[in-house]
Amino acid sequence: MYRGKAKTFLGDIQPGDKVQINQNKKIFQGFLMPRSELGDDKHLVIKLNNGYNMGFEIKDITIKLISKKDSQRLTEDELPIDKNKKFVSIIGTGGTIASKIDYNTGAVHPAFSVTELTNALPEIKEFVNIKPKLLFNVLSENMTPQHWKDLAVECAKQLNTGATGVVIAHGTDTLSYTAAALSFMLKNLYKPVVLVGSQRSSDRPSSDAAMNLSAAVKVATSSLGEVVVVMHGSLEDKSCLIHRGINVRKMHSSRRDAFRSINSPPIGEVDNRITFHGNYRMREDNKKVIVDDRFEPNVGLVKIHPGFKKNLLKYFVDNYRGLIIEGTGLGHIPSYLFDEIKRGCSKIPIVITSQTIYGRVDLKVYSTGRNLLGLGIIPGKWMSSEVALIKLMYALGHTNDLDEISKIMLKNITGEIPDSSCVNSFLM
Amino acid sequence: MYRGKAKTFLGDIQPGDKVQINQNKKIFQGFLMPRSELGDDKHLVIKLNNGYNMGFEIKDITIKLISKKDSQRLTEDELPIDKNKKFVSIIGTGGTIASKIDYNTGAVHPAFSVTELTNALPEIKEFVNIKPKLLFNVLSENMTPQHWKDLAVECAKQLNTGATGVVIAHGTDTLSYTAAALSFMLKNLYKPVVLVGSQRSSDRPSSDAAMNLSAAVKVATSSLGEVVVVMHGSLEDKSCLIHRGINVRKMHSSRRDAFRSINSPPIGEVDNRITFHGNYRMREDNKKVIVDDRFEPNVGLVKIHPGFKKNLLKYFVDNYRGLIIEGTGLGHIPSYLFDEIKRGCSKIPIVITSQTIYGRVDLKVYSTGRNLLGLGIIPGKWMSSEVALIKLMYALGHTNDLDEISKIMLKNITGEIPDSSCVNSFLM
Repeated sequence: MYRGKAKTFLGDIQPGDKVQINQNKKIFQGFLMPRSELGDDKHLVIKLNNGYNMGFEIKDITIKLISKKDSQRLTEDELPIDKNKKFVSIIGTGGTIASKIDYNTGAVHPAFSVTELTNALPEIKEFVNIKPKLLFNVLSENMTPQHWKDLAVECAKQLNTGATGVVIAHGTDTLSYTAAALSFMLKNLYKPVVLVGSQRSSDRPSSDAAMNLSAAVKVATSSLGEVVVVMHGSLEDKSCLIHRGINVRKMHSSRRDAFRSINSPPIGEVDNRITFHGNYRMREDNKKVIVDDRFEPNVGLVKIHPGFKKNLLKYFVDNYRGLIIEGTGLGHIPSYLFDEIKRGCSKIPIVITSQTIYGRVDLKVYSTGRNLLGLGIIPGKWMSSEVALIKLMYALGHTNDLDEISKIMLKNITGEIPDSSCVNSFLM
Repeated sequence: MYRGKAKTFLGDIQPGDKVQINQNKKIFQGFLMPRSELGDDKHLVIKLNNGYNMGFEIKDITIKLISKKDSQRLTEDELPIDKNKKFVSIIGTGGTIASKIDYNTGAVHPAFSVTELTNALPEIKEFVNIKPKLLFNVLSENMTPQHWKDLAVECAKQLNTGATGVVIAHGTDTLSYTAAALSFMLKNLYKPVVLVGSQRSSDRPSSDAAMNLSAAVKVATSSLGEVVVVMHGSLEDKSCLIHRGINVRKMHSSRRDAFRSINSPPIGEVDNRITFHGNYRMREDNKKVIVDDRFEPNVGLVKIHPGFKKNLLKYFVDNYRGLIIEGTGLGHIPSYLFDEIKRGCSKIPIVITSQTIYGRVDLKVYSTGRNLLGLGIIPGKWMSSEVALIKLMYALGHTNDLDEISKIMLKNITGEIPDSSCVNSFLM
């Protein structure tokens, strides 16, 4: 995007290349940044190694190429492997945590090179080998159930061929959906699968990318044996929280501490060391992970509100193989929908959850709930709408029998329906 | 529901009647409770004046009728009016706060008599006259936009004929939707309109009904001049919070402190006295409230998730006059929906909000957002999905012009789009 004088000045040097700039005998090293289309042809911008961007007027400087952009070269054999250390596989999927250079043009760029990764984790590479793999590169709003399957297969492959743990770098928008899906898909899992994201691109001074990734790698080497999400715990860069993958939710659109455990507290915390607060499944290195990716993606999700139209419910019943209804309060819907619910429940499984986010569905308190139970609706219990959606995809992937599906939905499989006595947190 | 020996024993006494029981020379007063269908014919249950239920074996007792059930008699002229006191109108709409006697059968019963109300508010009636009115009796999941209109008209009528404030007793499931609707419908409002509910029926020892109602009446006599929600602030019976009606949400399915202000802190707190924390609109008793109830109820709401089907979006575009899309993160949706969004935005207003609940939509950070802006989508900014839904009903009630609707949605009308500098709370 450099043009005119700047383009001539740069010659073969491209955005993303590592360069050295000499200005009044001062030397600066960093990556050449792309220029906005509105920029003039007299300046260039580099990202310094400390993370800040700096602009230079070309007439004041000389420039030297240090190395060409290597972000697409992600071959595993580039890695300096220390045979005495464990290895952690980092699987890249796209999203803010993997978008490094072109953030100001809006184009997400898989800046996931070995160099960048190990630079981001100076203390980590002292005790563990990192094996990065860019599995795909999508913004997380574009993730699909097929991506979950590919991820599950890759996690199993890495863990069953010696990885001590897996870290998945993921966009934050649908990170918790993926965490829930992997919680159902990875059977016999006794090693850590750690999803991590970033709310601020690593180009920005306030980025949480490096700290989150570092904490995630630590957790991937820990005594844990389940799917978790590791993200900032507060606005300060003090520690990261370890959330169980099945009950975590993005609760803020922009804050670094947006990810919160729902209904139960986080299972642990990472600063210089890892502290576990609650019960967790322990690592057992000799176990072999099995992938069960039988998922039926044709499940609908609909939210109840005043003015909700019966025809919409009819549309879902007629066009989906299963339905999650995000009801009000303890799991309620307007009574004018009851006859359509009755028709629906005779055709497809319908699960009710609550739009309150916290708390559980309980259909035995009020007459509305008891009526819904009588019509055949399945209570989502402690499951969020998102978790219920994914579990219903899982259940429908395994059987078409309505009774069998109801049994699966009501039974705890991977922590999604905790014992009520363990549930004690609200807005934490 | 009493049968056999119990029925004979009771004679004309019915569930809900006030009775006196004599057992071994001890005297108990209370209301006769209905019996479960599984109960025998040898016992009866009364609710004592202290709120507890007590069972008696009929062979051990004698019973005397004190007064017949008067729950349907809600005439205003029963009230002992003290001309020297202000009056607060309490409008009943149904829900847990108004369900007193038949809770164990599941039948909601409008226990909203003058006697019960004033008994529930012993300290209040010392300084204010209470004017109760049962406007309707629906579970709040059955509330519709038409109910909002009736409520707005009734509020204006009460306030414009001398009420110092209005309290609306409302089921909690859709209480925040009604609060938002009234915030748009009541124009030129300079007196308090206080919505209040109860998470526990007043039959239960843990009920929050009396304290919430008492706090609501206090707020209705305060210096405030806007629509607010008053509910328990914590699990202890220490104080109630005053939430702005336009940014409050039921965040837990069962806890008494389920109602929380979203993105901004509550505007005040009520214990023995009222403390205001933030800015609020001041009371001006000489102003006349105007009802603007032009609402178009045919607005859809849909939540994005992985696996979301394009045909569903098409269904909404073809069957609704406006649409709220609850996107992910800062307001994102999968890119395979973009062409349908483009078609949709040429026909109807489409507003995007975020399923994170907290934080705002910002379509300028990532390419997905910028693309959506280009397609004509309207950013919901700080509005929750529920508030955006109601505001779009309001906007469509006033104009069909897409540009005009977009302007209305982007402009702050009643606090739904606060100045970003005032937004500073998360999970409070």
